[in-house]
Formats: sequence, C-alpha cells, structure tokens
Amino acid sequence: MSPETSSADAGTDDTGADLAARLRTVLDGRWSATRDTVRDHIQTHALLPQSGLSLDDYRARVLGQMKEMVALGFPAAGFRAEHGGTGDVGAAVTAIETLGYGDLSLMVKAGVQWGLFGGAIENLGTARHHDEYVRGLIDLDVLGCFAMTETGHGSNVQHLETTATYRPDTEEFEIHSPTPNSRKDYIGGAAAHARYAAVFAQLVTGGPGEEPVGRGVHCFVVPIRDADGADLPGVTTSDCGYKGGLPGVDNGRISFDHVRVPRANLLNRYGDVAADGTYSSPIESDNRRFFTMLGTLVRGRVTVGASAGAAGRFGLALAVNYALVRRQFQAPGGDGELLLMDYRTHQRRLLPLVARAYAFALAQNEVTAELHDLQTADPDTVDPADMRRLETKAAAIKAGHTALAQRAISEAREACGGAGYLSENLLPLLRGDIDVFTTFEGDNLVLTQLVAKQQLTSYADDIRDLDPVGWVRFVANMAGSVALEKTAARQVVQTLLDGSDEDPENSALTHPGTQLRLLRNREDHLTRTVAGRLGRAREDDADPVAVFTDTQDHLIKVGQAHIERIVLETFVEVIGRVQDRETRRLLKRVRDLFVYSVLEEDLSWFLMHRHVSVERAKAVRRGVNELCADLRPHAQTLVDAFGVPPVGLDVPMLRHR
Amino acid sequence: MSPETSSADAGTDDTGADLAARLRTVLDGRWSATRDTVRDHIQTHALLPQSGLSLDDYRARVLGQMKEMVALGFPAAGFRAEHGGTGDVGAAVTAIETLGYGDLSLMVKAGVQWGLFGGAIENLGTARHHDEYVRGLIDLDVLGCFAMTETGHGSNVQHLETTATYRPDTEEFEIHSPTPNSRKDYIGGAAAHARYAAVFAQLVTGGPGEEPVGRGVHCFVVPIRDADGADLPGVTTSDCGYKGGLPGVDNGRISFDHVRVPRANLLNRYGDVAADGTYSSPIESDNRRFFTMLGTLVRGRVTVGASAGAAGRFGLALAVNYALVRRQFQAPGGDGELLLMDYRTHQRRLLPLVARAYAFALAQNEVTAELHDLQTADPDTVDPADMRRLETKAAAIKAGHTALAQRAISEAREACGGAGYLSENLLPLLRGDIDVFTTFEGDNLVLTQLVAKQQLTSYADDIRDLDPVGWVRFVANMAGSVALEKTAARQVVQTLLDGSDEDPENSALTHPGTQLRLLRNREDHLTRTVAGRLGRAREDDADPVAVFTDTQDHLIKVGQAHIERIVLETFVEVIGRVQDRETRRLLKRVRDLFVYSVLEEDLSWFLMHRHVSVERAKAVRRGVNELCADLRPHAQTLVDAFGVPPVGLDVPMLRHR
Repeated sequence: MSPETSSADAGTDDTGADLAARLRTVLDGRWSATRDTVRDHIQTHALLPQSGLSLDDYRARVLGQMKEMVALGFPAAGFRAEHGGTGDVGAAVTAIETLGYGDLSLMVKAGVQWGLFGGAIENLGTARHHDEYVRGLIDLDVLGCFAMTETGHGSNVQHLETTATYRPDTEEFEIHSPTPNSRKDYIGGAAAHARYAAVFAQLVTGGPGEEPVGRGVHCFVVPIRDADGADLPGVTTSDCGYKGGLPGVDNGRISFDHVRVPRANLLNRYGDVAADGTYSSPIESDNRRFFTMLGTLVRGRVTVGASAGAAGRFGLALAVNYALVRRQFQAPGGDGELLLMDYRTHQRRLLPLVARAYAFALAQNEVTAELHDLQTADPDTVDPADMRRLETKAAAIKAGHTALAQRAISEAREACGGAGYLSENLLPLLRGDIDVFTTFEGDNLVLTQLVAKQQLTSYADDIRDLDPVGWVRFVANMAGSVALEKTAARQVVQTLLDGSDEDPENSALTHPGTQLRLLRNREDHLTRTVAGRLGRAREDDADPVAVFTDTQDHLIKVGQAHIERIVLETFVEVIGRVQDRETRRLLKRVRDLFVYSVLEEDLSWFLMHRHVSVERAKAVRRGVNELCADLRPHAQTLVDAFGVPPVGLDVPMLRHR
Repeated sequence: MSPETSSADAGTDDTGADLAARLRTVLDGRWSATRDTVRDHIQTHALLPQSGLSLDDYRARVLGQMKEMVALGFPAAGFRAEHGGTGDVGAAVTAIETLGYGDLSLMVKAGVQWGLFGGAIENLGTARHHDEYVRGLIDLDVLGCFAMTETGHGSNVQHLETTATYRPDTEEFEIHSPTPNSRKDYIGGAAAHARYAAVFAQLVTGGPGEEPVGRGVHCFVVPIRDADGADLPGVTTSDCGYKGGLPGVDNGRISFDHVRVPRANLLNRYGDVAADGTYSSPIESDNRRFFTMLGTLVRGRVTVGASAGAAGRFGLALAVNYALVRRQFQAPGGDGELLLMDYRTHQRRLLPLVARAYAFALAQNEVTAELHDLQTADPDTVDPADMRRLETKAAAIKAGHTALAQRAISEAREACGGAGYLSENLLPLLRGDIDVFTTFEGDNLVLTQLVAKQQLTSYADDIRDLDPVGWVRFVANMAGSVALEKTAARQVVQTLLDGSDEDPENSALTHPGTQLRLLRNREDHLTRTVAGRLGRAREDDADPVAVFTDTQDHLIKVGQAHIERIVLETFVEVIGRVQDRETRRLLKRVRDLFVYSVLEEDLSWFLMHRHVSVERAKAVRRGVNELCADLRPHAQTLVDAFGVPPVGLDVPMLRHR
C-alpha cells in the first residue's frame, strides 16, 4: 500500500538534463516542433509580461508582437488551405498554448483575433466570407473581435438580447441593442483595435407575407470602426479599462443603435436569409442548429485550457527553481540553512501541483489532437456524436486545467514569499493574468455542470436548451433510470481494470488498475445517486426549482469526478506508450502522486461512502508524504521538462545564488 | 443533528436594516467610535484603491492621505501620553484596521509609519528617543521605515546579518551590510519617502580591554536620506518597483556601507552600550532579550490581521451584494432569471466565508482588546506569561485572518465573474493588495508552526531561538511527555462543555458544547500524537532533521486546529453576552455555519480518527447546505452589518439594476 520504493539518487546533472529532455518529449507530444518555434520566439523577443506600462502602450506593444508572429506561420495554420490557410489546427492551438510560457496578454489577443474572430469566419461563414476576410485576418489587415458576451448574459448565450432584424427593402440586417443589459461586454479588441466584430444576435426575419419571427442566435460580421479608429455611425464602443491582469488586451463594450449591415454579412453556413427574407437552414431544429454553431467554436475553449496549463507550468517552474536555491533557517551542524524544497510543507505545497500539471498537460494534448482530427477531416465524415463528446471533453479539461493553473500560480507566488510578490519576479503578473481564465470561454462552474449533465443524459440533444428546471424535469422523466454514458473504456484501461481486484481495498494503491477503479467507482456512485435525487422531481408535490437547488453541489461533484477520471485514464495510456524505462518509472511516480493527492483531497467522500477504509485513508496521507520525498530529488528535472524558455526564468530572485 | 430550524422570513427591509445595525454593534465592539470616524473619513475622502496611477503618483497620493489623517487623532493614540501621544492603543489599531474598508496601500503605509517605525521608537526606545521623535513621527515631520527583513532572511530575524559595530573612539555605531543577502529588502517607505530607518542589526561591542563580541539583534535609528530625498553617504537605497498590489507603498531596499550613527541612536530600552563600549541589559539572557524586544512589536501583527479581516469583509460585501442583484438563466415560468444567490453553489461559495468572517472578526476584537490592556498597563505589573500568550494568539489570529481574507477576496472575485475582473469594481485591486498579507509580518506557515510549538512546549522560553533540529531535540527530551498548555477554559466554555455529552456523537451538533468539544478533541489528539512522533527523536539512530521533516505537516495541523478552536471559543463567549434575542439567534446560526464548514473542510481527519461517525459526517455536509439555505434570506443583513462605507459599494456592477 505504500508507493513504490525509489532510487532516491537523482543521478548526475547530465543524467538529470537528459531525463528532463526525455520527459519533455512526452509532454510536448505531437506538435513539438511548433512548441519549439514559439519557445524560440519568446526567447528571442523576450515576450514576457510587463509592469508599469500605460494601457495604451501595453496594447500597442502586444499588437506589434502579433504582427511579428504572422511570419511564424501558425496564424495561417488555423484555416483550411482552400480558405487561404495551411490547415493545421493542432499547430494553431499549440502555438497559442505555448504563449502561456510568455505573456498571456499576447496569448489572449492572438486568441481573440485568430481563434475566436477568425474561428467564427472560418466555421460559421461560407465562401464569400472566407474569400473576403481570411487572408486579411491572418495578416492582421482585418482586425476583429468576438462580440458574444453581453452585460446581462455571461453564460447564457442562447438568451442574449441583441437583435438582428432583416429589412427586405434594403436587403440589410439591423443590429440593435434593445436594453442596457444587451450591451456587448468584456470584448477583447473592442476598446481600441478591432475594426470588425463577429456579433452574435437574435435573428428576426420572415418570408414574403410572413410575420418576422425570431430564428435564434446567429453571427454577423459588423464593421465597428473606420480607418481612423472612430466608431462608425450607430456604434458606441467604450473601454473596460484596467482589469485584474491582461493589461495588453483592450477589452471593451459595444452598443448598437439600429446599425445596418448588408445581407451578405450573415455568417450563413448554418442558417441563411434570402433576399426576400425567407429563412433557410440545413438544420431543422433551432436548438440543434444553435449548439452545432456553438460546437464549431470549441477551439477557443481548448486553447484557453491549454494556455492556462502552460502558464501554470511556468509559475510552478519559477517556484520550484526558487525552492531549490533559497535557504531558510539553520541546517543541523550550523553549516548553512536548509533549502526550502527540503521542508515537507514546501514539498507538499508544490509537488502535488507539479504532478497535476503533468496529468492535465497530457490530457490537454489529447484534446488538442482530437480537435485537430475532427476539424481537419472532411466535415461530411464527422460523426456528430464524436463532436459532442469532444465538446464535453473540452469543457471538462478547460474547467480543470484553468482551475489548476490559477491554484498553481497562487501557491507558487506564496511559496516564494516576499520575492514572489515583486513584479520583477513575474509571479504576481502571471497571477493577475490567469485569474480570469476560470471565468472566460465558459465559467468553470457552468462548464462543470454541463459536463455532469451530459454524463447524466447520454448527450441527448434535447437537453441543451433547457433551463435548470426543464432539465430537472427531463432527467426525472427518463423512465426513472438514467442511461449512463457507457463508452467502451480504452483498451489499456480495460486491461488494467481487468487485472485489478474488483474491491479496490484488496489491490495495491500504486497499481494503476486500482487507481482507475477508485476514480471510476466514485464517478459512477455520484452519478447514480444524483440521478436518484433528481428522480424525486417526478413526485407530485415536488418543486423542480427546489430539486435543482438541492442537487446542484452534487451535480458539480459529478463533473469534477469525471474530469479527474478522464485525466487519469489519459495519463495511464500515455505512460503505457513510453518506451524508455527510466522515463516511464519517473512518470509512474508522478502519476501516483497525482492520484494520491486527488484521493487525499476528497478523502472524506471516499470514507463516508466507504470506498476506502480508514486504514487505506491513512495510507493515502502517508503516501503523499512519501511520494513527495521520493520526487524531491527529481524536482529540478520535473520542471526543466516543461521547457519554459530561459528568459522566463531569468528573474532577479533566481540570479546570483 | 440537523441545524436549528429557522424562520426563513427575513422580515421587512426596515427590520433587516435594524437587525444589521444591532449585529454591527456586536461586530464593531469596544472601539466602535473610532471605526465610525474612519468610516466617515473613507466616505468623505473616497479613500479607495485606484488603477492607472504611476507609482510616483500613487505614492504621493497616499502620503497626502496620511497627512489628512493626522488631524483625526488616532496616530497619536498609539503613543503614551508621557511620550507625546494620547495612549489609546486599541483605538490606534482599530483605526488602521478600518482602513481595510478603504485602500490597503494607505493602511500599510500608515501602519509602517505609526505602527512599525513608531512602535519601534515607542517600545524599544527610551526618553531621549521619545522626546526626539514621537511628536514628529505622529505629525509626519519625521518619516520613517522599519528595516528588519533582509534579502536572505525573511522569517529568520534572529540570524539577520547586518552588523552594528560600536566604535568607542568616536562613540558611534557602524552600520554595515556585509553580504548581498544582508541587504534590507521589501521595506515599506525605503524606496522614496522615509528619511529614517529603524534598523535591526547584530550589535557588536566589547568593554575596555574586551574583545568585541556579538550581543544579538538590536534596533538603531539610522538617517537614510537628506532633506532633498538623496541617499546619505554610505546608504544605498533602491526601489522594489511594481508589486502584485499595494502600489501606493514605496517598498525598497537599503544597503549600508560602514554608515556611522551616534551612540544615542541605539534604541536602548532592553540593551545599552556605555561610552566605553560596555554592554548592559536589564535582561541577562540574549535569547529572552531578543524575544522580549520582538514581543513589544506584536502590535504590527495584530494590526495586519485586523486590516486583512476588514478587507476580506469588504470583498464579501461586494460579492454578496452582486449576488443579490445579478440574475442568471431562466427561472421557472420564464419570468426573469434566478438571482445568483439563489443557487446552492453560490451560497456555498460565499456564505461559509461570511460566517468565518464573523468568527474571525470577533476573535480579532478580543486580541486588540488584550493588546490594549497589556500595552496601556503599567509595564511593571504585566505578567510576562500574559505577554507570551498574547504574542502566540496574535500570531494565530494573524495567520488565520489573513488566510481567510485572501481566500474570501479570491472567491468574491470569481463569484462576480467578468465584472469581478474589472478594476472599476474594486475586487481585483483588493485581491492584488491582500495577497502579501499572508507573507508579511510573519509568513503564515512559519506563524502556524510557531503557534503549534508554543502549544507543545508550554511557552518555554528556551525553545524560541532553536532551529528546527534543536527544537526537535528539546521536545524529544521533555521526559517523554509533552506538557500541554492547560490554561483554564473560559467559564462560559467550561459550562458548555460540562453541559454536553463527553462523546460528541451523542450530543446535538448545534449544541455549542458539542462544537467546542469536537474542536478541542481534535486539537488535543493532534497535539498528543505529534508529541509522540517527535519523541522518536530520542532514539539512538534518529536523525532529527528527518524527524522534523517527517512531522512538519502534522505540526502545521496542530496550529490550524488551535486557531479554529480559539476562534470558536471567542464566538461562543461573545454570543453569550448578546442580550437581543433576534441578534443572538442569527449569530448562533452564523456560528453553526462556521463550525459546520470547519468540520466539513477537515471531515476526512474527523472520520479517519473516528471523532465523527459516517452518519454524522453526512449530517455535517447536509447541515452546511441547510444552514446556507437558512441564512440566504439574511445575506443582505449579514454583510450590511460589516458597515462598509457606501462609497466602497458604489461600483458600476452594483448600479442601475
């Protein structure tokens, strides 16, 4: 029940460096060449977060950095060759991810331009839009923003209020913000640089003789500024000003007062309006159409999770390096002081987060690869169910990875004491920048709930537009038994499960089969019990609001358990593919620490629901300590393998020691 | 086992406001008049954190605000009448605490000038220093800083490296920084405004014919800048620049190159040097002297905990108010959306923190009062043991209250979504400012360990200068049995304990006696078991470093358990004094939520060590939900009672809804 015994010697420095390089190959994965290109670019251009610049200067600096990146080629990678790109989605995502080792302001502004605005044109538009915009937006001749969020509607996109009413007399759409709450808000690029906006609005149109009716949310290209940067007639932009971080991103607001755009500006891949106002769509159901459109935008969510992960690794590399140079209090014998990393509390605060960073980095790579494969395939051959599963997985990994990054950077800052509070050592800047990643591209709580709901209802299309109450009623009426999503386990996972005792208590806790079983059992248990509780909504006197409120924390827990389970499965699978014995041995210990710390954090649940015994629970707690001690000699190797560009670690607190 | 049933109706608004006023009286405590004075001052001068100012402008702004505060009288309150003050320590601390409802930059800069620099002069100096500096430093004619921390020695003050070598030929001390690590660092005021520094240095002196020897750390008044702000000869100051927050505080560094100051500049209350170099002290033991000197500076630690608490309440007031205006997703029937505060996950993220904020605010008040009573008493009548207990309690509450504040503000920021990320809504500024409170005036981990060590060794003087290994040896040699600190319980606590079943499982979880017993039992259990583990260091083959490392996380847990226990005891005692029935009933429910959430967070420990059964553990989890629902109608009242000045809540996200 105790973790594998280790050879505690870290070997010579050469061996450590060599091992770090082999680990890095595993972490870098399929788009390693892209990673290295961006690392070199960060290194040579010193693309690091700054303090003390005015908003204007910072924004101009970042725009300049974007221009320097065009030549690297990856902005074109995000677009199909027939649209003017080079069609390597994985490279496009990985490049922006790697900017998490540099300045997140650049990452976000690049992500808005090429990922969100570009992604809307690419995925929701048709040939006329691709011809008109794609080349220009790659080269930054066309600067755009992504105007989805509204002041009053953060996570509730389907009910946003901006309207786009078709006027057959002039063949134009009239874009309008009917209420203060319908103002577009927090829009990156809207405060200063964007000349175009991809505006999400409720389309209202009717055919000849028909009353105009709402057709649901669609996306429109709306010019918002003239060549001098002045608001166009009817458009009012304003500046969100200073934020908790990301000072290089010009977030702003946009209100529309009956702004007219040509009919051609509707991004009409999934819904079109004829000259006479007749609406048509290849997808009959409004609801399915909305979620199909939204689904094509999944890349933003993947990218945000990935970049946050990189930033989290950056923060951990800073803190671990500091803990390996900083001494505190006297060592025995009086010759010098102990290194911070020699203290158990310090190991415990950093090393489990390093282990989680490994686990999530590998899961993130898998999501990026799946996204790439689906988005570069012939659209006609893509199974919509695969798309749905990818969307859920992207939501899961986004929520998990951004939460981990925020936590890791906060812990890293605190673990560096006063030095960690100085901007010159970068951690406070990382901390300010990462903070909003838990909120944008889907609030983490909302996403975690979404993940749980999908699990509970087997990805039923019908549930996606339901409010909480409607959803409760739906689940309650699923004939009393919730059909759990029974995807076949990956083969390696199944083999390991088969090779472990059905009662996890009888099987070593370092056996991956036991680990998988514990996390699977937790998820199954939580899913079954929440389904049972939701079923009560069928009772005559049940108040669905009360039922929903009553089960919400349980539902969130289903989502969290799911996230940790799928991350572990990927980790296990990746380790199975590693050939090098030494690399594999170290990764297994990292995986063990990941699992032990996941178990430890939720130990009360495992105990209360009798999934572990008191004795095993104590072994988990001891095991975290032992694994931390085991991995202590490899701490440098583990963070070196992240491959943070040297310029990012060349900070005053790490010099001259 | 379930929480008391509530009358869920919050009553009319008038009743709510009246109840808030009554609660506020309880929270405001003994120095309520001072609180109101500072609240009014914040309100009329709009003393709120700013964004977009340059460092120079922000620092000048805060210095100007300090000047406006002199007339309020409280800067004088921190000094004895015979020194030129008005001698109301509690008012001085409470005034700076209340600045946590305004701008923490002002709080810190004021705390440095009047609390730390002023406190050093007041408590370590003698008549000549009081005569020379006290009036000037109250009026800001004398601007000072507190130069204790060194680059290489954050928490290890006793081993700092700056030297003060006495030169009998000229009757001067030579202040010197012998190594890069001995540079004074992070010193508030050192970058720009301070003209004097209270410098902590190793005193080196010998009498006639004696070899000069180290006498331990003493404090010296050292002029560092001339009237034009230029560094004086031998002094090199530099600027720490931008930080994670607190932009109005000019943190800097100071190096000394054989800087001479007159003999009179030694703050000589606890150690003096005669003209011929002879050292004398009223306290024979170097160790006891050092800790006595440090002990007189406890006010800084009390103030930092208190101000952090106020800032945490400010953050919670912003988030709870937002949750009571912001709607999200559709409510049943389609008429509007549910308020954020109606979601269980939102209640769970905010209300337990509100309950903790109440608990810690009351404990903080008690520490302030105890500090006041000890520091305004005739020094000859003060029992050193009482002083020691106050120091430990101040460390405990500082660690607990700052950690709570950081957590509360982070959670508040996230609970406000995108709006919470905009500086105009203040939360990101609060978040950046509060971040370092967990580090300065004693790193929280170091303080928590200190608390545990004091508990384990009954405040034995001998342990205070021991490094970890020395301390392990000391504990191990305490004849095998650690003498637990057996202070008599407060009477109300004892009565409640007597009135509850010895087995907490047999007694209602809402009974305060049960609550007290659970937290006491946890602390006792942890203390006994850690003592047993430390005892192993007596074994022949024991490596004391390994023993220390092995028990460090356990030791930290002792400290944390102690903190939560003493906070609960104060809470219970305060409630016992509340006459008004409605106020008392509400406070009891807040106390219940505090206890339930403390239990829930450590449920795995309680289960593993069989202090609660599985059934009771489930009741705890359910109880948190039920108490959140119970307190939901009172959410507005609970945060209104904090008495945050209206200007602090007049932010865009709370307007026009």
